[in-house]
Amino acid sequence: MTPADPLVTRLRSSLGDNAVVDDPDVLDSHRNDHATFCTAGVPRLLVRPSSTAEVSEVLKAAGSFGVPVVTQGARTGLSGAANALDGCLLLSTARMNQILEVSVEDQVAVVQPGVVNADLSRAVLEKDLFYPPDPSSWEMSTVGGNIATNAGGLCCVKYGVTSDFVRGLEVVLASGEVVRTGRRSAKGVAGYDLTRLIVGSEGTLGVVTEATLALRPAPEASLTAAATFLSIEEGIAAAAAVMASGLRPSLLEFLDRPTLRAIQDYRDMGLPADVGSMLIAQSDRGLRAADDVARIAAICTEHGAIDVAEASDAEESRMLLEARRLVNSALEPLGVTLIDDVAVPRSKLVALLRGIAEIGTKYDVLICCPGHVGDGNMHPTVVFDRDDPDAEARALQAFGAVMELGLSLGGTITGEHGIGKLKRQWLAQELGSVGLRLQREVKAVFDPNNLLNPDKLFL
Amino acid sequence: MTPADPLVTRLRSSLGDNAVVDDPDVLDSHRNDHATFCTAGVPRLLVRPSSTAEVSEVLKAAGSFGVPVVTQGARTGLSGAANALDGCLLLSTARMNQILEVSVEDQVAVVQPGVVNADLSRAVLEKDLFYPPDPSSWEMSTVGGNIATNAGGLCCVKYGVTSDFVRGLEVVLASGEVVRTGRRSAKGVAGYDLTRLIVGSEGTLGVVTEATLALRPAPEASLTAAATFLSIEEGIAAAAAVMASGLRPSLLEFLDRPTLRAIQDYRDMGLPADVGSMLIAQSDRGLRAADDVARIAAICTEHGAIDVAEASDAEESRMLLEARRLVNSALEPLGVTLIDDVAVPRSKLVALLRGIAEIGTKYDVLICCPGHVGDGNMHPTVVFDRDDPDAEARALQAFGAVMELGLSLGGTITGEHGIGKLKRQWLAQELGSVGLRLQREVKAVFDPNNLLNPDKLFL
Repeated sequence: MTPADPLVTRLRSSLGDNAVVDDPDVLDSHRNDHATFCTAGVPRLLVRPSSTAEVSEVLKAAGSFGVPVVTQGARTGLSGAANALDGCLLLSTARMNQILEVSVEDQVAVVQPGVVNADLSRAVLEKDLFYPPDPSSWEMSTVGGNIATNAGGLCCVKYGVTSDFVRGLEVVLASGEVVRTGRRSAKGVAGYDLTRLIVGSEGTLGVVTEATLALRPAPEASLTAAATFLSIEEGIAAAAAVMASGLRPSLLEFLDRPTLRAIQDYRDMGLPADVGSMLIAQSDRGLRAADDVARIAAICTEHGAIDVAEASDAEESRMLLEARRLVNSALEPLGVTLIDDVAVPRSKLVALLRGIAEIGTKYDVLICCPGHVGDGNMHPTVVFDRDDPDAEARALQAFGAVMELGLSLGGTITGEHGIGKLKRQWLAQELGSVGLRLQREVKAVFDPNNLLNPDKLFL
Repeated sequence: MTPADPLVTRLRSSLGDNAVVDDPDVLDSHRNDHATFCTAGVPRLLVRPSSTAEVSEVLKAAGSFGVPVVTQGARTGLSGAANALDGCLLLSTARMNQILEVSVEDQVAVVQPGVVNADLSRAVLEKDLFYPPDPSSWEMSTVGGNIATNAGGLCCVKYGVTSDFVRGLEVVLASGEVVRTGRRSAKGVAGYDLTRLIVGSEGTLGVVTEATLALRPAPEASLTAAATFLSIEEGIAAAAAVMASGLRPSLLEFLDRPTLRAIQDYRDMGLPADVGSMLIAQSDRGLRAADDVARIAAICTEHGAIDVAEASDAEESRMLLEARRLVNSALEPLGVTLIDDVAVPRSKLVALLRGIAEIGTKYDVLICCPGHVGDGNMHPTVVFDRDDPDAEARALQAFGAVMELGLSLGGTITGEHGIGKLKRQWLAQELGSVGLRLQREVKAVFDPNNLLNPDKLFL
């Protein structure tokens, strides 16, 4: 009989047997998030605390044993930030899934980190309130994971990203100490903004155990318009004109030619063979949505759209969004997908898309480029044959070349997915040596022994 | 003849004679910002660099001589953050006042820190763009100062505060090294958000030498409504109902009974003697503003307003805002004013206002309470006789009691003015000991020798 793991013994005595898992099959199923091409190690154990005090116990125990801690939500991230490393303790927030409060008067929700985004969205909607951040994983991903990655989504173009809705946090530090940052009030400037520092820190600064989130009044009914263009340039120009119009669409998505071809091959959407790009826009202003959609349609027509459709009800809106919704399903049969996440100033979008087409040609891989065009945040997706090792190498080179291109255009290597394990080698190039040093030193303030997600973010 | 100050000699040789001032009269005129009751020391010299490279030279020289540096914009701050300390070097950003770029397509402006807020606002408006942050000092205050304090203003209730519009910064560290943080693109999550850390850091982490600011399409014409109520409770309830309505007013201001009395005494606005509170709201949605204002007026009537006025044009709007605009002028003749800046969750506003009235009674001082009610950010203003030392002591006690009250209601001691020198003794109470330690350690990362505004923020 193997002697008991003393860390397991200690944690079971404080958290109970069920909260501490060392079954190899369970551990194996928790090694990875949704990132492709990120290695993952073999964890030592999985712990499921159910309170802030238990998280504190876990971090104290891990600290005593010098065991690294990887915090996991629903593991839907796309950068490997939640991947295990060898011998680590996986800290799952799954049991801390309570919505502690929804205040209509203060328009805030107070939640535990394991609450699923969709559960929160639905709970607040019952009170005519709205939690905007809507990453495409929203039906599965947790608010804690959204905070760790500063998740974006479709409606960012109007409402902003996760960090714009985080007022305050309760965080357990590597030492086990509990700290509260931020506030519940709409404004506050007392001291440095540690809340924003922790949002997007990918589990490297502390474990979020509670969040106070800003809510808005529920939006009104929405309507959608979709337009197709012969060229990329026309679609991008129309998007820029929509953004300059003051209309504030609640969604503004772009699909390029390779993406549209894949969708048409996957399901007949009646897209012509020569289609070059598609723009899909939405207004969520109720009675005014029809006017907004008509104005957006007019802008698209002025910019050379070959076909413009305006929905007049929810069902038609759903159909116009169908192309966007089918992207992942349409690309999957074509091979392995490696999803990039560059964001550039909108004035550089045409250069980005042209450059990406050149990269595809150079490395002989298919790159489809859907994206949140209103934010300049594209998801160039390298698609390659899973059984061709040479294609895989070329895909990885193309993936890197896309980030280099984004940086050269004054953009960022990641608009909303994060660095995780996937993009560590490009971070120094974006931040510069002084910036990187500051970031490492900030990390050391919060986690002096480098035990919180130590192989992520930095190389 | 006094021997030349070697620091002056060094700085004159690198920046030129005119950029380095040691004239005692000039130095004396630069000792204070607009905070009352903050002591200020006697500076050693004033330096006016005109480029990032010169700022770097200044910080290197100050570092070599171990001289503390206080960065100053227009010195319109209200917390003493820009006050001199004995023997310090004052670094004025006044000469770095260039708007480097306004991009219509990217909806960003790139500016130097010494640009006056109003100059930027007017310059971008010429291109049909809008820089929302509008602290009441906007005609004088600089963007650099607004960034250092994370300034708010009237239109925060719809558009947010300064930090919501800062995409990226160029910062000179205490070492003289130059670092760029953030991005130009709408989104970006590469590494920790050092931009947000520096916004609101009151000159304690570095000297901002360039900022990339997000702009929006220019708002349409605005209209105003004003309503008076017999009680504070009715005015606050009406404000809450406006915020819950989904209307998104571009301004929502509150005046309490003592403030309204002072205004009526200063100028006859026809306010009845029994008026308890006033709400002023604005919509900036052009053709829809009249509808919005009518809905706001109806909400106020439903909540017991004794008088509701809806403007039908810009001139009438201006007149309805007059009461708010007269607050400072009306309070000035009554004595010295000590302006507080608590922010609480909106559900606590009635408790805050009742508590403030009790504090006024207890300490026998007049406390007027205007504020940005939509954000829960009030400016309780203690007014007392300048020639009565006993009144001064009571006023300071009342000032502290207001902050304690704000904290006890789950609020913050400062919604938009900052800590500076004025509120250092209350910061620990808001942040807690662990939070305060983290903040100090973050400070040490950026400024290990504690030379940047060392007597501010922390005691």
